Amino acid sequence: MLMKSATQSLTEQLAERYAERIRQRLLAPGARLPSVRECARLHGVSPSTVVAAYDLLLAQGLVQARKQRGFFVREPLAPRSDARSSAPAPQSTGPINASALIRGMFHRVSDKPQPGMGVFPPDWLESEFMPAAVRRMVGTRALNDASLHYGEPLGDSGLRHVLSQKLAGYNVHAAPEQIITTVGATHALDIVSRTLLRPGDPVMVEEPGWAVEFARLAALGMRVLPVPRGPEGPDLAVMERLAEAHRPKLYVSVSVLHNPTGYSLSPGCAHRLLQLAQRFGFHIVEDDTYSHLAPEHATRLSALDGLQRTVYVGGFAKILAPNWRVGFLAAPPGLVEPLLDTKLLSTLTTPSLLEKALAYCIEHGQLRRHAERIRVRLDGARARSVKLALAAGCRFVAEPMGLFGWVDTGVDTDSLAQRLLDDGHLIAPGALFHAARTPSTLMRINFATTQDAGFWRTYSRRVAEARASA
Amino acid sequence: MLMKSATQSLTEQLAERYAERIRQRLLAPGARLPSVRECARLHGVSPSTVVAAYDLLLAQGLVQARKQRGFFVREPLAPRSDARSSAPAPQSTGPINASALIRGMFHRVSDKPQPGMGVFPPDWLESEFMPAAVRRMVGTRALNDASLHYGEPLGDSGLRHVLSQKLAGYNVHAAPEQIITTVGATHALDIVSRTLLRPGDPVMVEEPGWAVEFARLAALGMRVLPVPRGPEGPDLAVMERLAEAHRPKLYVSVSVLHNPTGYSLSPGCAHRLLQLAQRFGFHIVEDDTYSHLAPEHATRLSALDGLQRTVYVGGFAKILAPNWRVGFLAAPPGLVEPLLDTKLLSTLTTPSLLEKALAYCIEHGQLRRHAERIRVRLDGARARSVKLALAAGCRFVAEPMGLFGWVDTGVDTDSLAQRLLDDGHLIAPGALFHAARTPSTLMRINFATTQDAGFWRTYSRRVAEARASA
Repeated sequence: MLMKSATQSLTEQLAERYAERIRQRLLAPGARLPSVRECARLHGVSPSTVVAAYDLLLAQGLVQARKQRGFFVREPLAPRSDARSSAPAPQSTGPINASALIRGMFHRVSDKPQPGMGVFPPDWLESEFMPAAVRRMVGTRALNDASLHYGEPLGDSGLRHVLSQKLAGYNVHAAPEQIITTVGATHALDIVSRTLLRPGDPVMVEEPGWAVEFARLAALGMRVLPVPRGPEGPDLAVMERLAEAHRPKLYVSVSVLHNPTGYSLSPGCAHRLLQLAQRFGFHIVEDDTYSHLAPEHATRLSALDGLQRTVYVGGFAKILAPNWRVGFLAAPPGLVEPLLDTKLLSTLTTPSLLEKALAYCIEHGQLRRHAERIRVRLDGARARSVKLALAAGCRFVAEPMGLFGWVDTGVDTDSLAQRLLDDGHLIAPGALFHAARTPSTLMRINFATTQDAGFWRTYSRRVAEARASA
Repeated sequence: MLMKSATQSLTEQLAERYAERIRQRLLAPGARLPSVRECARLHGVSPSTVVAAYDLLLAQGLVQARKQRGFFVREPLAPRSDARSSAPAPQSTGPINASALIRGMFHRVSDKPQPGMGVFPPDWLESEFMPAAVRRMVGTRALNDASLHYGEPLGDSGLRHVLSQKLAGYNVHAAPEQIITTVGATHALDIVSRTLLRPGDPVMVEEPGWAVEFARLAALGMRVLPVPRGPEGPDLAVMERLAEAHRPKLYVSVSVLHNPTGYSLSPGCAHRLLQLAQRFGFHIVEDDTYSHLAPEHATRLSALDGLQRTVYVGGFAKILAPNWRVGFLAAPPGLVEPLLDTKLLSTLTTPSLLEKALAYCIEHGQLRRHAERIRVRLDGARARSVKLALAAGCRFVAEPMGLFGWVDTGVDTDSLAQRLLDDGHLIAPGALFHAARTPSTLMRINFATTQDAGFWRTYSRRVAEARASA
């Protein structure tokens, strides 16, 4: 509820609130503002105040009015100077809007728990061993060694050796020479798609799936073909039809603790998927971002396949330090050279200081023990969160596993997200996980941030409101 | 000269020498091996030994024979699984080979001075202040703060503030909100081209110019249009014709201390260039990689233009620490959002630990004083190098300035490079700086590594040999 103040009228306050969200991309380009009636109820003001506020936003160029349809956030100005481009237009504005929405996830909207977050809260990751590992590297001699030349193109060889051993623990056998370090798993996925695909190429992704992946592939001009993801793995009948019709060159998959569902691939599905890959000649990039939270003996495509058609991608943002941006890929021997060329063209080398510190943490078992502690803590948080979510009327669409819950709220989560922002909570609406941003009643929750009753009380109130206004 | 050994025949030794160069990309895919006669003379063996060695390489799949033309390094296997792709083929294999050749520049071929290097030798960059700056950041609290969350999408705000002040010293006025940190200047250039261009778009580059830029643009599927670069700037008549005919969207330029010539843009040329950009509606990305070695009051397009059509790119690999991989771009306000989206899609955020350490070095004047010392030392090295190069019969094609000399050797430098490798010297042949890799008698030398008479004696011997066998 807005309150009159000495310095700002209600109209100005309301306009400023929406302007701020638009600037922060918490309201994505193309998103519809609430109807005048709904907005008036939401903020406890008169409809005429809302009309005046929307007019202010219109005058500021932040929104546009569409006849009979309401007010929409304006698309950002196209940076391309020549409209007569012969290049194909992006497949749809969906994925690009998703990239905008992702931006919202970097904003700290409040100090309250953020159910939409994709990572653990910083206090979960705090450790003494990680700073200590960095301190080992900062003697003048060691630091100069790790700074004053570009470093190895493939990445720090010490790290590649311990990664090779670590992967063997997942039955993924990659020599250090098959491993390339990257600026986080995101960079690894970017390198793989730029190397294996040309603009216009079809590429299969999982749906629901991770919006940054959809957005990147769309921005690179690829044709994104979503394959439904079920508890066992991708829908192989759909995949076969798509492979037959479009001959995609690549399938991008989070096999283990899939985002957002938490599903892990079954061995049988993995086997049949690899047979399809063989038959239709496509590669698979296996994004194992959640490996440190995974159950033991989880099935990885890269293990079954022996890194023949698969490229394995890993990272440490979810378990150790999101800002270190150390990721890696392990590739079939024949793909290492072209992948390395793409790395060099995109960033030259990667900073070895943090790679060396990470190698130390892995080699000395610190990362393993840290991951064990986090898993135990997450198990507790998940149990509490599930109970609270069920009590708040959520339905789990997938069995709760790993970091994320995938729940049905019964109301449109894009609009619920806008309501909850007023309370300082960022949620991850289901539309974010669909290549075409289809409206959805689903949302992804981060179990580490949803174990407090406070959020769920607010949530229940907002869902009830949404139902009432529907 | 090869010598018989107990364990390896001459044939095996010779084959192994070439195999190693091919693996290290010191002989690029598509490069021609010396003729049998030339190779025999070069290594002091009989022609039959060479034939046997080349047959070994053929059997290993490293080279291929072309009738009447000799032996060529095999192109790496195409990673793309589907040959029936409808996407356009790359413009030429030239730039891609260049990307392979760049790989050679990361190999430490020997402990001798390396005239082909693109950076200062590590001992030039050694300092106490840089390790000290990093140590300031490694307290447990500070390190956790700089590690445990993704960090600001634009990059560390402290660094962006000092960069904003630093740029003002070049008369480039960019608010911290217009600055985006990147993984080195390479990443910044990659982000700009991915944001402003679509595959198939024409883009103007300087020729001679930096091969990594040609290779990246070609790999992204762009049409590379070279504009000759002269002492004052690009050839504006050629640029106008190209702009008229192709309507390119972007011009990529190293205005100050251009690589490889050392030319710096004149104010008059800068003004007319910006008029062309205005008239034909293209953007300019100004790569100011060598800013720390530049004369005071050098002309920057971004300063004249006020960051309207220009994006400024900078980095610290040439002056502080190549491996830190901290670069940045400063963009017109309207381009910041789309450029930031591309950054997030390519690497999410960047590591802030090194960004914070760099900010400290800049803020406390350490980088400025360090750059002054390096400039003085480089002036001395350049004077000695020029004298030696002239005595060795080199002709300077451009007035010696900055880090690089651009000299005419009178012999083909691709083949000279192979000869000098035998002596442990890596040189940068002129073909590397041409988009189409045209054969060239030019080479780029790094003044920091060419001030010893030893290299020039070897050089003169090899040039004489090349003349004799021509």
